Amino acid sequence: MRSSNWKVLLLGYGNVGKALRRMIRERASMMGLNVRIEAVVNRSGIMIGDGEHFVKSNEGTPLDALNQVSPDLVIDVSSANYENGEPSISLYREAITRGIGIITANKAPLALKYGEIVDLAHRHGVPIGFQATVMSGTPSINLIRLMAGSYVTKIRGILNGTTNYILTRMDQGLSYDQALKEAQEKGYAESNPEHDVNGFDAAAKLTILTNFAMNKRISIKEVKFSGITEITQSMVSEARNESKKFKLIAQSEGNVTKVSVMKVGVDDPLFHVDGVMNALDIHSDIQEVTIVGPGAGPQNAAFGVFSDLVLISKGLI
Amino acid sequence: MRSSNWKVLLLGYGNVGKALRRMIRERASMMGLNVRIEAVVNRSGIMIGDGEHFVKSNEGTPLDALNQVSPDLVIDVSSANYENGEPSISLYREAITRGIGIITANKAPLALKYGEIVDLAHRHGVPIGFQATVMSGTPSINLIRLMAGSYVTKIRGILNGTTNYILTRMDQGLSYDQALKEAQEKGYAESNPEHDVNGFDAAAKLTILTNFAMNKRISIKEVKFSGITEITQSMVSEARNESKKFKLIAQSEGNVTKVSVMKVGVDDPLFHVDGVMNALDIHSDIQEVTIVGPGAGPQNAAFGVFSDLVLISKGLI
Repeated sequence: MRSSNWKVLLLGYGNVGKALRRMIRERASMMGLNVRIEAVVNRSGIMIGDGEHFVKSNEGTPLDALNQVSPDLVIDVSSANYENGEPSISLYREAITRGIGIITANKAPLALKYGEIVDLAHRHGVPIGFQATVMSGTPSINLIRLMAGSYVTKIRGILNGTTNYILTRMDQGLSYDQALKEAQEKGYAESNPEHDVNGFDAAAKLTILTNFAMNKRISIKEVKFSGITEITQSMVSEARNESKKFKLIAQSEGNVTKVSVMKVGVDDPLFHVDGVMNALDIHSDIQEVTIVGPGAGPQNAAFGVFSDLVLISKGLI
Repeated sequence: MRSSNWKVLLLGYGNVGKALRRMIRERASMMGLNVRIEAVVNRSGIMIGDGEHFVKSNEGTPLDALNQVSPDLVIDVSSANYENGEPSISLYREAITRGIGIITANKAPLALKYGEIVDLAHRHGVPIGFQATVMSGTPSINLIRLMAGSYVTKIRGILNGTTNYILTRMDQGLSYDQALKEAQEKGYAESNPEHDVNGFDAAAKLTILTNFAMNKRISIKEVKFSGITEITQSMVSEARNESKKFKLIAQSEGNVTKVSVMKVGVDDPLFHVDGVMNALDIHSDIQEVTIVGPGAGPQNAAFGVFSDLVLISKGLI
């Protein structure tokens, strides 16, 4: 799939989509890439061509858009639908069988049906990039691609910035409610923070990572997760007295894949990862490496997608 | 240069070379690679073919070996010669002009003549991999490859495990001499530790990183470096009283490229990197990411070379 010319169909056009459009305009040609957004499709319809603001050209579904523009690549920056992964999953199926590659920043399709989608892509020899689903633009999936030839035996990470911010602020003395409110005010938590604070978001990312790093075929439905809602200020201050911190740890080893709050000590590389930062600790049969970086933000997510575009163009994905 | 068949000429055959040979035998075919070591050349002569132990087939220089076996790839795991980078540099020049790719774990040629060698490789369209020169098998150079499309504005790292081990043990109460002796006993420091403790080794790695990450053309001769030999137990304990640690920091920003001991506080991602671990903090116009991992060891260095082999085969390098 080595190519430098890409006609793109973009699914979704929120902040990530707009940041990606800007990034493509500013950076693609200097990377030797000729990338054209042929159409954008969202819930309200289809925009043919490339505009800063969405202006509907015609009604239609993502499949209609696929038929209308015949892209080389579908980029999914739509928001996650964990009910059934639609309309993304149907679009991926159709695109892949037509030989069209996929890059996604949307976690739901792969958290629900990693095996089906990735195996279909492999059978059809089309690339599928999904760096931006885990840790945004901080290399996680793509870092593991670099380590091909080693066997990943264990992954452990802080994969949700919202909960890490809340736990960090609680460690600094705030109550859970105060910390959550502050996170919402700063835009780190949504008005309905349920998927973050109950561990579901981290579990979705862990599902994707586990499938990819350990060559599994699991769904998020099989992953045990719990969140931070039971953590109280007194538990946090007691931990601090032992020089420990509570962290929401997403971990896979052997057949155990789970997200739960754990008390970690200063010797743990995840102890020092505070605020909205994310981190991933990868143990392989060769070495243990830890990467720390931002896990969210439109510009970061757009960069995760852009990185996949570069790697697909060079033939690494 | 996308290929899965490689005839290799190996320069040097110490612990890294032997670990690499084993890794190729155990892991190349599962990666879809067909890699054959055609000859090994070291100071004593040439071994034609692939054997666990070096047995000289005939006298000859690296250039003689190149003529004898016509490889597709030269892998340099010989030890660094900072006098003039020979015999590696002459071998690279000749190999590159014949269209033969290079992977090196040897820092000296690129620390001395990065610009000449890398530009020659680009002109001839041949790949040159050098992940193993910096942080061994922990992705550093190759991590930056993943971030193509972003502009690296600053790099800061702990790039020498020996000095980090000594400083860590001094932080735990040992004197410089005790810590150095212990490092030597554990095999972390050589009997002549000069290139480690005076900052030269870190400066060589920083030179390579700076050239690559910031597209510069500097030689180690232009890099200011100092080491840890002036650090006393009383300085370390005074820093500890301020909750700080001394770290040997290799840093490039703008036109300043230098290695020096700095006092860092708990908010610095490098504060928590102790013992023989290495770390690299990469600031780009998109994000700051930090990677932490082992920076030495035959198996690790062999993996760094192996990773380059995989990336060259896939076309990323």
